[in-house]
Amino acid sequence: MKYCAHCGHEVELRIPDGDSRIRHVCPSCGAIHYQNPRMIVGTLPVWHEQVLLCRRAIEPRHGYWTLPAGFMENGESAAEGAIRETLEEASARVEVIAPYTMVSVPFIDQIHLLFLARLTDLDFAPGSESLEVKLFSEQDIPWNELAFRSVAMTLDIFFRERREGRFGVHHFTLQPVPVAPPGTA
Amino acid sequence: MKYCAHCGHEVELRIPDGDSRIRHVCPSCGAIHYQNPRMIVGTLPVWHEQVLLCRRAIEPRHGYWTLPAGFMENGESAAEGAIRETLEEASARVEVIAPYTMVSVPFIDQIHLLFLARLTDLDFAPGSESLEVKLFSEQDIPWNELAFRSVAMTLDIFFRERREGRFGVHHFTLQPVPVAPPGTA
Repeated sequence: MKYCAHCGHEVELRIPDGDSRIRHVCPSCGAIHYQNPRMIVGTLPVWHEQVLLCRRAIEPRHGYWTLPAGFMENGESAAEGAIRETLEEASARVEVIAPYTMVSVPFIDQIHLLFLARLTDLDFAPGSESLEVKLFSEQDIPWNELAFRSVAMTLDIFFRERREGRFGVHHFTLQPVPVAPPGTA
Repeated sequence: MKYCAHCGHEVELRIPDGDSRIRHVCPSCGAIHYQNPRMIVGTLPVWHEQVLLCRRAIEPRHGYWTLPAGFMENGESAAEGAIRETLEEASARVEVIAPYTMVSVPFIDQIHLLFLARLTDLDFAPGSESLEVKLFSEQDIPWNELAFRSVAMTLDIFFRERREGRFGVHHFTLQPVPVAPPGTA
């Protein structure tokens, strides 16, 4: 951010009075431009013993498999956003059962919220952001071709809990993946 | 938003290619300025049979009682934000137990996420945004002086579940309060 969205003047980086963090502040009109984490909402669509995954047609992680999810929009509830994303990415209709995993990803300023959901019919198809949409049984999940850690952890928890016959609500925080220093194995 | 935060040019309202919603788009540099819901994170701090409430020193709802909560910041997890807000508003230290209520408030583009938490000591005091911080037993909760519906519903669920001895995770969506048409009672 370089310019004030309200008046067009160049913004400054400083700590506003009564605040403790550096913000983008407009020295002309006084506007403070806060930046906050964004919510990614989606579903884990379940059909009997199988779950629905989408193969991404867009970056990041083009070609990798994911659960249908995307940025929550203004004017919708979290569950409405999750249902909309499932329809957009997989042309699939679901009934939301309950919030299932809530994953904070602080190093990219995101929260991923995935709802356990019931697929209501088999009339699904790739949306414009998917190459392929497919039902997978546990033994067929492409674990090495999953797009995001929050998706892999959600699927792992789901199949474990399904065996136990009891579904909880899970929250956890991802840390950045350590990168090996050059020259190490 | 009137001006592009990247280049300072006046923005237009239009639906970008491949999108289905009206966005602020810069005709000069092409930037699309998405606006997304913001997360309010906080805690329900519990001390034996009592819960900690703060009386607000700021608008909206100046003078009304609330749970310690505020806007989640970039670079923190939801639980870290909730702990930070509890420290800022009530100078209180808590251990987070679990996510408790998640309330979508689509008409103001917010999600309220409150964690069940354990107050670790009684050394609390009003922060700069609170007039007063106090422990309340169920029979003393100022139900008619609570600041927000999400707070009232969270407290109501908490005391009910405490009697049942079992705490769940709850998500719901608030609708705008209907305003009575002029001339009606």
